[in-house]
Amino acid sequence: MAQFTVNPWEVEGEVDYSKLIEYFGTKPITKDILDRLAKYRPLHAMLRRGFYFSHRDLDIVLKEFEKGKIFFLYTGLAPSGEMHIGHLLSFCMTKWFQDAFKANVYIQVPDEEKFLAGRGVTLEEISKIADIGIENIAALGFDPNRTFIFRNTEYIKHLYKPAIKIARKVNFSTAKAVFGFDNQTNIGLLFYPALQIVPTFFEKTRCLIPAGIDQDPFWRVQRDIAEGLGYKKAAAIHSKFLPPLTGPAGKMSASKQETAIFLSDSPESVKTKITKYAFSGGAATIEEHRKKGGNPDVDVAFQWLHIFFEEDNKRIEQIRQDYKSGQLLTGELKQILVEKLNKFLENHRKEKKNAKGLVKKYMHNGRLAKRMREWENI
Amino acid sequence: MAQFTVNPWEVEGEVDYSKLIEYFGTKPITKDILDRLAKYRPLHAMLRRGFYFSHRDLDIVLKEFEKGKIFFLYTGLAPSGEMHIGHLLSFCMTKWFQDAFKANVYIQVPDEEKFLAGRGVTLEEISKIADIGIENIAALGFDPNRTFIFRNTEYIKHLYKPAIKIARKVNFSTAKAVFGFDNQTNIGLLFYPALQIVPTFFEKTRCLIPAGIDQDPFWRVQRDIAEGLGYKKAAAIHSKFLPPLTGPAGKMSASKQETAIFLSDSPESVKTKITKYAFSGGAATIEEHRKKGGNPDVDVAFQWLHIFFEEDNKRIEQIRQDYKSGQLLTGELKQILVEKLNKFLENHRKEKKNAKGLVKKYMHNGRLAKRMREWENI
Repeated sequence: MAQFTVNPWEVEGEVDYSKLIEYFGTKPITKDILDRLAKYRPLHAMLRRGFYFSHRDLDIVLKEFEKGKIFFLYTGLAPSGEMHIGHLLSFCMTKWFQDAFKANVYIQVPDEEKFLAGRGVTLEEISKIADIGIENIAALGFDPNRTFIFRNTEYIKHLYKPAIKIARKVNFSTAKAVFGFDNQTNIGLLFYPALQIVPTFFEKTRCLIPAGIDQDPFWRVQRDIAEGLGYKKAAAIHSKFLPPLTGPAGKMSASKQETAIFLSDSPESVKTKITKYAFSGGAATIEEHRKKGGNPDVDVAFQWLHIFFEEDNKRIEQIRQDYKSGQLLTGELKQILVEKLNKFLENHRKEKKNAKGLVKKYMHNGRLAKRMREWENI
Repeated sequence: MAQFTVNPWEVEGEVDYSKLIEYFGTKPITKDILDRLAKYRPLHAMLRRGFYFSHRDLDIVLKEFEKGKIFFLYTGLAPSGEMHIGHLLSFCMTKWFQDAFKANVYIQVPDEEKFLAGRGVTLEEISKIADIGIENIAALGFDPNRTFIFRNTEYIKHLYKPAIKIARKVNFSTAKAVFGFDNQTNIGLLFYPALQIVPTFFEKTRCLIPAGIDQDPFWRVQRDIAEGLGYKKAAAIHSKFLPPLTGPAGKMSASKQETAIFLSDSPESVKTKITKYAFSGGAATIEEHRKKGGNPDVDVAFQWLHIFFEEDNKRIEQIRQDYKSGQLLTGELKQILVEKLNKFLENHRKEKKNAKGLVKKYMHNGRLAKRMREWENI
């Protein structure tokens, strides 16, 4: 049995990702696939470095695209508290695909999910958090005419009928097995998966979903029922979890301040948190570190740079070597991350301010949004 | 154990109504309650003759009303096929209460329920059936400024958030125990009860629900959670089932033509069906009937007259005596019902034609409908 738990509402323990590929029945992202992707756009660090490590039918998506068949992208954000760095990664990946393939992007903001999952937030609190979350997404620069962002409670008139058709095909036994539900699960959360599946049917073309591997159960159910409803099986690419500051196990959590860097953290707060909490792969003393070197594989500062914040392959390898050899001290490594993070956050806050006017386009009157406000049903 | 099954999606066997009062923990409608109701309006036959036989908190509703506290009415129609006589009865009862107490009436048309319950109809088929159902309800003469009719799929934007708050408080175990769900129940039907409970929270005043006793599980759950949400426990009055033409067991079914009289049945069809299918309490031959008499207690034609179609107390008692004594033959008894039924249906069709213009008022621009189109949340 696994020493870890991964489902949409729970990530615990140190995840063995190759075991997860086996358990979930997905495929690893191979060099061949990366080479084919690279034809359209220089690979994002998250692809080059294996943070996106697993997929379903990405090979088919590429084969279809090579033959002129387009696809669309779908991802989402379930608001429950302050937005942290980890929340942004699937959006950055989705944006990369939109830029590479000029694809439509649908972004679901399920503003009921975390209430139903019993995360201690009210619907009213979530509503405010969702507004901020959407502004944060808008800051990333999606194409305003090819991107539609919606909140479940406000878009429910369009979602409900297709959700009913989906729900009709999923019984409690299946939901229990796939999502880890039990007899204590409330009937709202039991129904919720139907709503998260609906956007995979927004177009008759194939859907590609960049998201954390924990979301895969939804796509498994989708793939079981899609063809029966006259649609295509969704494709997905799965990311690992950005390790929490506190160490390699589990997932960052908005409710545990010390595990995450929030988009609203000040430069000082970033410095303090990284210095204080970021789990180190360094030796106990400077002398020992200089002698034996550090371990980048467990060092969270190195991992964050590797996954996202240092895009330059040469530079990250240099950092790795210097850290391993003991030339680079833990404090110095952390300082590299602090600078990268603060630069990223400063830029993000600037873009966010600029993007405020875009929210209406993404949600209501961009070309795709307008079409989706008329969308009736599957 | 009971030799019958009663839940919202299944009525089977010959129902023992006094046992049902015991199982469900409701109260019988007493003479005292009837006397208090009669102060406001001459009692409807369905009350006088015990067709509405059980209640929850109707005594409290009356006590509150006597002190000047108003209440509101709520009932519904789940479309699945042609509308039959049995479908109308709860609306007639609701109309009686509206006339007596000048109360607001909310009518839910859950146009997804029977699809989720696997009744072999598509959402698209239900949609057409729902339109006709609403016209049939409009024909009954509800106050256009005090009545709001809505379909779940079109009003879902208003229903969804409160449904989420309700669903959060009901887990699978409870739903299983109360509604007879099992592991094969689909996740849409599992969520559905939350939507049927929402209208009980449309006003802060108390809700009174006239409906068949099979709907009581919904009100039981409502009463468990209402006060926690800052609302009042719903009151209910429960009817028996109008016996199917074919005999005293079960419920009329739109999918079994021979069990029901449909609102669209022609006078000839009514005559044929009653003559051919109506279960008779008469003797095998005319000679034997003249000698031994008939049994009105099992005779469906008599039951229908008694429950609804012969309002005059003296006349119905005369019919009972004549049938029991053998003076009235089965054919003659059936002919009385045929005439009553055809007169009722002719009048209903006339009113339906007149009421077409009213549908918009009930659904959109009557005084109550307008208010409810603005209703945001609980």
